[in-house]
Amino acid sequence: MNILEIIEKKKNKQILSTDEIRYFVNGFTVGEIPDYQISALLMAIVLNGMDDRETYDLTDAMLHSGDVMDLSSLGGIVVDKHSTGGVGDSTTLALAPVLACCGVYVAKMSGRGLGFTGGTIDKLESIPGMDIALSEDEFKKVVRSVGCCVIGQTGNLAPADKKLYALRDVTGTVDCVPLICSSIMSKKLASGSDIILLDVKYGTGAFMKTKEDALVLAQKMVDIGNRAGKSVGALITDMQQPLSDHIGNSLEVVNIIDVLKGKRSRLYSELKEVAVKLLSLTPLYTEETAVKAFQDAIDSGRALDKFAEMVKAQHGDERYIYHPEMFKLGEKIAVCAQNDGYVTAMNTADIGHAVTLLGGGRMKKEDSIDFSVGVEMKVELGSEVRRGDVLCYVYHNGLRVEEATDLLRKSVIIGNTRPQPHKIAYAFVNKEGVHIY
Amino acid sequence: MNILEIIEKKKNKQILSTDEIRYFVNGFTVGEIPDYQISALLMAIVLNGMDDRETYDLTDAMLHSGDVMDLSSLGGIVVDKHSTGGVGDSTTLALAPVLACCGVYVAKMSGRGLGFTGGTIDKLESIPGMDIALSEDEFKKVVRSVGCCVIGQTGNLAPADKKLYALRDVTGTVDCVPLICSSIMSKKLASGSDIILLDVKYGTGAFMKTKEDALVLAQKMVDIGNRAGKSVGALITDMQQPLSDHIGNSLEVVNIIDVLKGKRSRLYSELKEVAVKLLSLTPLYTEETAVKAFQDAIDSGRALDKFAEMVKAQHGDERYIYHPEMFKLGEKIAVCAQNDGYVTAMNTADIGHAVTLLGGGRMKKEDSIDFSVGVEMKVELGSEVRRGDVLCYVYHNGLRVEEATDLLRKSVIIGNTRPQPHKIAYAFVNKEGVHIY
Repeated sequence: MNILEIIEKKKNKQILSTDEIRYFVNGFTVGEIPDYQISALLMAIVLNGMDDRETYDLTDAMLHSGDVMDLSSLGGIVVDKHSTGGVGDSTTLALAPVLACCGVYVAKMSGRGLGFTGGTIDKLESIPGMDIALSEDEFKKVVRSVGCCVIGQTGNLAPADKKLYALRDVTGTVDCVPLICSSIMSKKLASGSDIILLDVKYGTGAFMKTKEDALVLAQKMVDIGNRAGKSVGALITDMQQPLSDHIGNSLEVVNIIDVLKGKRSRLYSELKEVAVKLLSLTPLYTEETAVKAFQDAIDSGRALDKFAEMVKAQHGDERYIYHPEMFKLGEKIAVCAQNDGYVTAMNTADIGHAVTLLGGGRMKKEDSIDFSVGVEMKVELGSEVRRGDVLCYVYHNGLRVEEATDLLRKSVIIGNTRPQPHKIAYAFVNKEGVHIY
Repeated sequence: MNILEIIEKKKNKQILSTDEIRYFVNGFTVGEIPDYQISALLMAIVLNGMDDRETYDLTDAMLHSGDVMDLSSLGGIVVDKHSTGGVGDSTTLALAPVLACCGVYVAKMSGRGLGFTGGTIDKLESIPGMDIALSEDEFKKVVRSVGCCVIGQTGNLAPADKKLYALRDVTGTVDCVPLICSSIMSKKLASGSDIILLDVKYGTGAFMKTKEDALVLAQKMVDIGNRAGKSVGALITDMQQPLSDHIGNSLEVVNIIDVLKGKRSRLYSELKEVAVKLLSLTPLYTEETAVKAFQDAIDSGRALDKFAEMVKAQHGDERYIYHPEMFKLGEKIAVCAQNDGYVTAMNTADIGHAVTLLGGGRMKKEDSIDFSVGVEMKVELGSEVRRGDVLCYVYHNGLRVEEATDLLRKSVIIGNTRPQPHKIAYAFVNKEGVHIY
């Protein structure tokens, strides 16, 4: 077997064998196959595709390129959720304590934000003292005692994916369904959970622009999970506007506290949908009992307490959870509508970019973050506005404020016709098939 | 402009602009664009193609990446011929003196052999003393005084092609018509001739396996030459069997001496066809007068004398040309037919490989060559043979003889039906169009 034959095969639209896929993934990971050969192969994969078996094999090879978390010692049901990323998506922060209240373990490793998307880990770090770099032992200890713990990626999980992603990023080979699916699923499967809910976003604030593309991605990832013997479901959800009205690190935590107190919003609906679907993937719940358990966790106040408990266990200052006014926020200014009409569309990615401009996100991996800045949306898709109405508030500390407000103003499109209402969830996929809402 | 946008464009089947093509060729040549990005782009070009304008621009960018020979000081018509390579193709050795006798200059830079194909420069070096590394000034001086000179590539011609070819070789991106055409034509155009005849081979001993593929390649290269303002024609010729009965370095020179003396053979027919077509591309000749001039050069003995004159001018021992028995050859053994029938096919590349096994060619660029070994074919396609008849003689010095004879025996396919006769030339292409013979 040699890499040139493998490149030639894929160039000629042939199917790669399991051994051939393992050979190139391992050879690249250990540095025996140079990047210029792998980038040619990646381009051939982008243009000639990979079937489901190949995609699974690629996932499996990347998954086994490094450590695989063993969570069996926890002795319970361990669930995980992954979002493909968007703007104002702080679901994970609320979901972890809710699920822990429902008797399942959440041992979650999350990422940092880059570009227009925020990162769960950054949001958590806006709580003073919060430690998101626990050792594996501490991590498991918190999960066992509290029921949930959210940290940054630990150990050497899927190093092949890390190396391949870095190469894809600079060779125009990012937007390829088999490569995206195997990248996400290799990390998820290496994280050790048996039950996984994928939240695949589509729209102006997501990598997938259409429902249809998101559905294809979801189906492929569920297929990979099933082949790996896991219980996997996927929701396809709307990112045509920011998921949370609050975008920014501290702002999103403040908002989550409201959600956990039961305040209704789009994020609350999303949280409920994700929690119910995830619980019903476990042997413990049907959809009906899951709805009841969810409502109970919120209404009893236990979910909020659990969040505070998790924060405390991770060395964070839990007083902030009960007194969100303690979060320091930037100076607040309004961005107003310049004409009458309806909010017909949002350039959601640009709303995320505006927060990044203010210092609340990263352009490059090394950038530091200002937790106190962000945007609070006062309109949503379909809102009727008049000239001078507040579209959103900007919380800033003086950095690139004009650029950001300008971008925000342009991001909210005001037209003459009220748009169709947007549902949060478009479809659910599991091993039974696709259910369109 | 940046390389990632260029890769994305070609990935999405868009046409690259002249500036974009220059940008990546120049950036790669000077080392500013890394090979892993260029290999991804090359794979996108292989799979999504390049149109004629792009292919011309690529050729032009590579051509101008280094020195361009200026032969205008010679003050005459300078012609060049390029073969896409094969087995027993020693046409250039005979063509140069013939053309010089017909009043045109031949200032030819040739290559060395690799794999199953022989190289003109290696064959010339089998003549003791022959210097194929003349300086540019000496080269021009020999061309001016003798009329012809054949040396190895000099100067820094088309360094972009050299670098791109090395990368294509290890990334599965060799077999791509726009890349092959631009590689050949950038070097040809940088060599400074105004009139170029391309000899595009097809068959079991050529890179192009079918007439049709060879014709496509020929048409594209003629198009590039026309766009560059040169007079370019292309012959599509047969490589279903070795062109010369003699394959090997000294053996081919010995055979060329016979051809220049007028001995009829397949190589003689090829030489005549190439010479006549090339002369008729110049303003000096029609096809009719070219035939006469060719015949005159051979029949008068002037072509052989001219060959000796060129050898002498390049410091070679010209006595070998008049006394070819001076060439030292290896020990001679026969390879015989194992059954009765007709020679229906030849694995021509394997005949070339057999010579390489004997030490007469190179597996790697660094290998040295034994000029005295080779193969003398005693049959051709269509020959009737009986068990025990000699198929060919092997000239060897003890190296891998059994392997080579075994490979030769298998390379000559004996069947029951006499095949159709093979014509040397299948088609001629010039700016007027395609003429099928």
